[in-house]
Amino acid sequence: MKIEQLGRHILVEFYNCDKEVLNNHALIEKYMNEAAIKAKATIVQSAFHMFNPWGVSGAVIIQESHLTIHTWPEYGYAAVDLFTCGDSVDPWVAFDYLAETLKSEKSETTEVPRGLVDKIKHYSKEDLGTITFKPVDNAAS
Amino acid sequence: MKIEQLGRHILVEFYNCDKEVLNNHALIEKYMNEAAIKAKATIVQSAFHMFNPWGVSGAVIIQESHLTIHTWPEYGYAAVDLFTCGDSVDPWVAFDYLAETLKSEKSETTEVPRGLVDKIKHYSKEDLGTITFKPVDNAAS
Repeated sequence: MKIEQLGRHILVEFYNCDKEVLNNHALIEKYMNEAAIKAKATIVQSAFHMFNPWGVSGAVIIQESHLTIHTWPEYGYAAVDLFTCGDSVDPWVAFDYLAETLKSEKSETTEVPRGLVDKIKHYSKEDLGTITFKPVDNAAS
Repeated sequence: MKIEQLGRHILVEFYNCDKEVLNNHALIEKYMNEAAIKAKATIVQSAFHMFNPWGVSGAVIIQESHLTIHTWPEYGYAAVDLFTCGDSVDPWVAFDYLAETLKSEKSETTEVPRGLVDKIKHYSKEDLGTITFKPVDNAAS
């Protein structure tokens, strides 16, 4: 069966990563942006922050939703979220790229549907017609 | 029982929201930032984007992780993530504030633990000692 949903959200726990990479603000921002591009997403904004004394947090806002990361270099751990909409983007490509660049030796993922179309219709008080993740005749830009 | 974890992540589906609010870039950014502050989080960066012809996406990076939102005004739907670390921040306060300001008549949430301490220790090849979400003697800034 196929379930219609606006987006898919992969929650990733990256264990046993390279601690130096996890603490490198420039590298983390670069890898997250490259992960978005490799997944065929279109980046609209990118915001990253280096913590004192260590750790990086950041988000890449894409036309198709977002990628975020929070790193704990001291534990070799990073929490990553890959939330994408539409069929043209593949969040698993971003996952593979980050697993490789963060040098994670162990990871766990959970995929969660976001914006289940039947639920949106079920709860709505009006007839919403056809539901698509972006306007069909006038693509989001 | 109490389980030690670095963070908690609440995935929220807001249905039947006010469509005008969902399509108001300035209001969405304001409410998301206010939600962070009300939850007692410390904002480090905020990045929002207005789509053409409608819809807003954005992220508030906080010292304690992040809040994100993606809105579909045409369906009255918004996907929100509230990811916080540490005991001083309460993501449910942010949830309540957003439910109220987006005028959501129906919402659903899932809370997911992020960075389970026993797992990080279990997978690690070294003794990590005490694990805390931020350095104890030198608070992240």
